[in-house]
Amino acid sequence: GRPGHCAMMRVLVTGASGFVGRHTVGPLLARGFTVHAVTGSGRILPEPGVIWHRADLLAPAAVRALVETVRPSHLLHLAWYAKPGRYLTAPENLSWVAASLGLFQAFAARGGGRMVVAGTCLEYARSDQPCVEGHTPCQPESVYAVAKHALGLLAAAFCRQAGVSLGWARLFHLFGPFEPENRLVSTVARALVHGQAAACTLGEQVRDFSHIADAGAALAALLDSRVEGPVNIASGRPTRVADLVLTLADLGGRRDLILLGARPTPADESPFLVADVGRLTREVGWTPARSLEQTLEETLAWWRQLR
Amino acid sequence: GRPGHCAMMRVLVTGASGFVGRHTVGPLLARGFTVHAVTGSGRILPEPGVIWHRADLLAPAAVRALVETVRPSHLLHLAWYAKPGRYLTAPENLSWVAASLGLFQAFAARGGGRMVVAGTCLEYARSDQPCVEGHTPCQPESVYAVAKHALGLLAAAFCRQAGVSLGWARLFHLFGPFEPENRLVSTVARALVHGQAAACTLGEQVRDFSHIADAGAALAALLDSRVEGPVNIASGRPTRVADLVLTLADLGGRRDLILLGARPTPADESPFLVADVGRLTREVGWTPARSLEQTLEETLAWWRQLR
Repeated sequence: GRPGHCAMMRVLVTGASGFVGRHTVGPLLARGFTVHAVTGSGRILPEPGVIWHRADLLAPAAVRALVETVRPSHLLHLAWYAKPGRYLTAPENLSWVAASLGLFQAFAARGGGRMVVAGTCLEYARSDQPCVEGHTPCQPESVYAVAKHALGLLAAAFCRQAGVSLGWARLFHLFGPFEPENRLVSTVARALVHGQAAACTLGEQVRDFSHIADAGAALAALLDSRVEGPVNIASGRPTRVADLVLTLADLGGRRDLILLGARPTPADESPFLVADVGRLTREVGWTPARSLEQTLEETLAWWRQLR
Repeated sequence: GRPGHCAMMRVLVTGASGFVGRHTVGPLLARGFTVHAVTGSGRILPEPGVIWHRADLLAPAAVRALVETVRPSHLLHLAWYAKPGRYLTAPENLSWVAASLGLFQAFAARGGGRMVVAGTCLEYARSDQPCVEGHTPCQPESVYAVAKHALGLLAAAFCRQAGVSLGWARLFHLFGPFEPENRLVSTVARALVHGQAAACTLGEQVRDFSHIADAGAALAALLDSRVEGPVNIASGRPTRVADLVLTLADLGGRRDLILLGARPTPADESPFLVADVGRLTREVGWTPARSLEQTLEETLAWWRQLR
């Protein structure tokens, strides 16, 4: 019962009701996977072809029981502690490393063959060049980034030994429907649709922004490939934060609401964090079809209909 | 209830009945610690001033209960999966990372202030120079070495955030009483005392050997200090394996039993792995009092009385 055979493309998706996870389900179904979606306390959204499971992944026995029940050929592990304002420093990051290690062991022991796990762009050391997997050094700073990076080292060593294929997805900046509050695009879009002022930093930082649906599709493509090791999930487009904010404002017709420089830029913020997307484009074979402006317009429309 | 006050130097020692752990208890008692010694399935050796606990550290609830009972000010974490011939590649390494993370969280949550954890010389990238902490790059290869290294990264990030002081003890090659079988000195010493031939490699590899009692005393000194980060626990003496083996043979008066070159040197074996002991000597203030020959002689005598 090893994967690769079409008849048993059975994927276990953790964090499936989260911001990233919910956007992977459609692309996975489209690729022919039977999707077993897991959530801890999130909302379960019934959808044809998706089998939902509720499980507390921090409980080792629950993880083993879940894997025993599903017997997945593929694993897409996205669940993590994500409380805004707390997740970078919280001790829960250690609990999620521990839970993930138990999940990987159970997955391999039950015959799983291919897994993709969410890493982060924050694993990379600061650089004024686009980050290249396996070339740009890693130097994670926060507890969150260290936890993800250490988990990546452990997963790679374990999978090599266990004969499991591993893709390590380094997610860059994502925006779109269901983005948590207190993040850049969600905050500015909400302000615009409510006609309220948005206090921003000067916005000189350069970042790599992708629409969450593109990230979801890229993750499904990565899982469905045999590409090994770290892969940036990103657009490869360097964008000044101020330019992104002003594009969004213009799309809403309210540039007057944007107060650039009204908030100080955090001293520890990196001035440049952009992905090289050579691996994603050439090895995974995935490229986003739409422009940043198109996806921002769509996102603003989504926030407007929520109002 | 933070440590530093003499009245509450209460140390929890995990793996206390193991090869390393059993040699730390005496030095810890001598430094004024109340010693709470934990073992999973090892022998409990009653000793004045030592409180023994039996606990399965792989069970998160047992770890929390133990820390709740002991409320240690200090933690010396040595327990690990150590099955000879299996420990380098075993999936149990992941279980011990997970268990260790739970232990660290419980320790910090219950007011613990200072901890020392066993890392390994195998964390270092190969080099023809002595390994210097924070300078020689790390590039662990086996699952075991990656697990220890990743745990070290996690421990450092967590402790910095939690306000816990951390010493990371990179253990080099150790020998002495109770050394597990199938290791270099234990194998050669047993052959010598039984008058049997010892099939060795050519022994051109250069290593850093310490007596286990010296390592135990160094670990106690490190725990009793405020030295932060990685510290090599080693002698700093580069010794060819062949020289060590022949010294041992001469001490036993049976050089004839040593068959150098009778076994092939493993292809993946590093030719040079020696510690720089500047941090241990100058910052921790610890230096072994005895020569390699003295401690080898003592060790041979120990194996002889076992016969």
